[in-house]
Amino acid sequence: MRRGLSKAGLGRLENEEQLIELAGAYGFEAADADAVTLIERHGVNGAKELLTRNGVELGAIGLPVEWRQDEQTFLSGLPQLTRSAAAAAELGGTACCTYILPSTDWNPAHFMAVATRRLRTCARILGAYGIRLGLEFVGPHHLRTRWKHPFIWTMDETLDWIAAIGEPNVGLLLDAYHWYTTGGTAEDIGRLKPEQIVHVHLNDAPDVPVADALDNGRLYPGEGVIDLGTFLRTLNGIGYRGIVAQEILTQTQPEESPEELARRSRAGFDRAYAAAGL
Amino acid sequence: MRRGLSKAGLGRLENEEQLIELAGAYGFEAADADAVTLIERHGVNGAKELLTRNGVELGAIGLPVEWRQDEQTFLSGLPQLTRSAAAAAELGGTACCTYILPSTDWNPAHFMAVATRRLRTCARILGAYGIRLGLEFVGPHHLRTRWKHPFIWTMDETLDWIAAIGEPNVGLLLDAYHWYTTGGTAEDIGRLKPEQIVHVHLNDAPDVPVADALDNGRLYPGEGVIDLGTFLRTLNGIGYRGIVAQEILTQTQPEESPEELARRSRAGFDRAYAAAGL
Amino acid sequence: MRRGLSKAGLGRLENEEQLIELAGAYGFEAADADAVTLIERHGVNGAKELLTRNGVELGAIGLPVEWRQDEQTFLSGLPQLTRSAAAAAELGGTACCTYILPSTDWNPAHFMAVATRRLRTCARILGAYGIRLGLEFVGPHHLRTRWKHPFIWTMDETLDWIAAIGEPNVGLLLDAYHWYTTGGTAEDIGRLKPEQIVHVHLNDAPDVPVADALDNGRLYPGEGVIDLGTFLRTLNGIGYRGIVAQEILTQTQPEESPEELARRSRAGFDRAYAAAGL
Amino acid sequence: MRRGLSKAGLGRLENEEQLIELAGAYGFEAADADAVTLIERHGVNGAKELLTRNGVELGAIGLPVEWRQDEQTFLSGLPQLTRSAAAAAELGGTACCTYILPSTDWNPAHFMAVATRRLRTCARILGAYGIRLGLEFVGPHHLRTRWKHPFIWTMDETLDWIAAIGEPNVGLLLDAYHWYTTGGTAEDIGRLKPEQIVHVHLNDAPDVPVADALDNGRLYPGEGVIDLGTFLRTLNGIGYRGIVAQEILTQTQPEESPEELARRSRAGFDRAYAAAGL
Repeated sequence: MRRGLSKAGLGRLENEEQLIELAGAYGFEAADADAVTLIERHGVNGAKELLTRNGVELGAIGLPVEWRQDEQTFLSGLPQLTRSAAAAAELGGTACCTYILPSTDWNPAHFMAVATRRLRTCARILGAYGIRLGLEFVGPHHLRTRWKHPFIWTMDETLDWIAAIGEPNVGLLLDAYHWYTTGGTAEDIGRLKPEQIVHVHLNDAPDVPVADALDNGRLYPGEGVIDLGTFLRTLNGIGYRGIVAQEILTQTQPEESPEELARRSRAGFDRAYAAAGL
Repeated sequence: MRRGLSKAGLGRLENEEQLIELAGAYGFEAADADAVTLIERHGVNGAKELLTRNGVELGAIGLPVEWRQDEQTFLSGLPQLTRSAAAAAELGGTACCTYILPSTDWNPAHFMAVATRRLRTCARILGAYGIRLGLEFVGPHHLRTRWKHPFIWTMDETLDWIAAIGEPNVGLLLDAYHWYTTGGTAEDIGRLKPEQIVHVHLNDAPDVPVADALDNGRLYPGEGVIDLGTFLRTLNGIGYRGIVAQEILTQTQPEESPEELARRSRAGFDRAYAAAGL
Repeated sequence: MRRGLSKAGLGRLENEEQLIELAGAYGFEAADADAVTLIERHGVNGAKELLTRNGVELGAIGLPVEWRQDEQTFLSGLPQLTRSAAAAAELGGTACCTYILPSTDWNPAHFMAVATRRLRTCARILGAYGIRLGLEFVGPHHLRTRWKHPFIWTMDETLDWIAAIGEPNVGLLLDAYHWYTTGGTAEDIGRLKPEQIVHVHLNDAPDVPVADALDNGRLYPGEGVIDLGTFLRTLNGIGYRGIVAQEILTQTQPEESPEELARRSRAGFDRAYAAAGL
Repeated sequence: MRRGLSKAGLGRLENEEQLIELAGAYGFEAADADAVTLIERHGVNGAKELLTRNGVELGAIGLPVEWRQDEQTFLSGLPQLTRSAAAAAELGGTACCTYILPSTDWNPAHFMAVATRRLRTCARILGAYGIRLGLEFVGPHHLRTRWKHPFIWTMDETLDWIAAIGEPNVGLLLDAYHWYTTGGTAEDIGRLKPEQIVHVHLNDAPDVPVADALDNGRLYPGEGVIDLGTFLRTLNGIGYRGIVAQEILTQTQPEESPEELARRSRAGFDRAYAAAGL
């Protein structure tokens, strides 16, 4: 399982280039960087060269489409999605991710129908470029009542949604924090096939009751209470060989420099991988 | 628009054959009969001959799959669906219908995801045989709170669901009672394309507040307060040329004989078509 | 059936605006203009206003994707397709068309597989914007041996291909010249449902043996030997209410001015519609 | 990679039960047996018990649908497919396979379109039961001209076809004989993802020029010239962990008893796995 970095957890990064350089400098093999920006600034060959020079591959890109609002807003994002998919594919990217808010102001059944169609459209555009779409279920309890009606937040519900979308290139983004806050077990991961997982997020949770863990209250791997050893060992055991990228959402930006945070991230990954016997 | 009869509204029918004969005798052009039963009893040629002799075509068959419960129950219905589709196709049938309960004990978003996949599977099996799947939204207000959570009950939500299912052969079953109890207008029908409608149900509602109209409190066409003239005229105006089948759900079986009820149905259709200027 | 003009047959048109103005001036209700160009030059509102002022709606746009060559070329067209679809949708367009060459240098079975996937991708992007994809089978005999292997050229083969693509928004572009050069009959059109037809081309053929009619040897409607009365009458009879657009492919540009050619087109349409009793 | 036996290569087997018992007795972990027959004779629990008692799991079932002839024949096989899929799923089966003849009497492009739709329908029915469809490309040169027109026979063409079918549960049946007779290399296998392979066939080829190797001239693993060490090592290297089932097609039934042939098969597998370092 290749170690990756995202921007979330590195403080005040100046740009994509710094993310890639820090990833390379601290032993990470992937960076969740923006492919369009990289190509705009360096050209395709320059961007590839930047990645290669740092020993880093392109990780997951974010889904540049607002699929939760009105139809016009959704449609207006599709040209950008096509450009993003093309750009990511040029740099060797194979993953694009979005998250599922666990509550909604819509009628939830109706929203599920509309969002199923919209995410299918996104998956199909991505699929043309050989890119997969990862859906991240979101566990923190406070978000389940943040909007009017409960939506979905468990892994099994998300797998059912993926089946409803019905495209070969849709799978899970499995985030340790959401696994933890939805009461996930080793068995839950153990019954996945590796190809059902598009991307993995690594992070940790504070020592508070699970129901009180806030979405933006995450810790660096190994600094909290999530059993990341079991998490990573089980993922490895089912044959997952993709990227495990750090994602630390916090209420305020950390004080340390990006460099110090990258070193701290490296230490966290070392601890978590060691706990997994990897 | 061809007039059709279903069993609902003809009292204590003895069998499919009586439905077909009454349809033919009272000027109906279609009967929502069970194709498998007809073929079992008459063979394919005999069943065709029975229909032809009575001047009646096969209307819609019901979906013989329980898609609202557990997965095992759903799967166990698919062999029967394949047989039903094959049988209907042999008799010239092109429609299969099911209804959507407006509330559910499931988490509604999750149920929408699961049901989307299941109905897609049904649609694909039907589609192999050239048969379309009609989804009937169900309007009576009392059913919206009959189970724990609201699901969907409007035409627009159902059209969004049809798009989520994403198969070319899925459309609406448009029932006059549900159009009425969801506050449907001529404009609502007017913006449909005829190919979006798989089947139409005709019936009437008692003179009570709309919110009090019970699902099994339906009247014969022309005996109630629904503006069936507008309903049929608008359907005809958009180019719909399919079947308009009577469906009268009542709390108790009517006292009259099937023959008397068929005559009454005929009179009701005459009134409604006349009101539409057809 | 609304009369439409394309550029093919109007000589040396200066731009899209002239096409729209000539369409309006000579009683045509639609113009197969380029939506992206119109919006670039006039903005969305200006483009709409230009169409409205001339009493013309946007007809079919061409598919801006090369789906017959290598994969890289195919993929590089998708961002443009997304932009074109968005632009057409903004102007009320609902149709996008491409043609099928009747022979190919590829292994034909392999090409069919690859092209099925590619056109499905195109259809899905168009479908997100409510636009349909029309496939035009191409009849002239000389093209059947123009490349190494026969591909497909009949209406029935094309319908089978549409089923293989499997998207709800794919249908036929029915061109009178190709109907004629493939030996099409009224019965062939008569068994279509109107929603299977995305767009129609009108033109005529010289009085030569059918097998000698050249693809770029087309005449104006009513100036040749195709039974356009039967063609249009049957289309109207099955309920087709879409656009019938002129497309005249010739070896050399005609000498007349666009204005004279528009007048000639109008006369041709008048003759053909009159022959159809419309 | 689990070793499996099919009937092809065991001579005059009496029934499915003997296949399962021989598989168990000679160290095979899977048997390509007919699930419907097993359940008819033993009931679901009895059939499961028979498999468990012999330490054998259900391998791939054959596709019980004739998809290469007329539409009526195709459709008439779908009820049986639904039953077979249900039966296989009840016994834990996850694979169903069919083969692609490398030439055809149809127009090959047209046949590709029709067969794409039909195999999609089959895949969807299988997919409802969690069963995958494996497509076997067929390499022997003499079959490429056996019917009028070339169809497809390479792995890459087959992968393109799988993409055209477009269902998540369709993949390759990779047969050592067809890999060999199409000039397959380790690199060809090396660029597959394990989930692209539904089933594997093991067998060997006589020491004749590749172009002369007959489809029904196959040898037991390790008795011929195919580099099965490379074949199996590469499959294992990409992470394939599914079944490798023997399939020996010969012109005449071998003289030996099923028991002797099972022993010989075991020895062949031992040689091939040893050559692969497994």
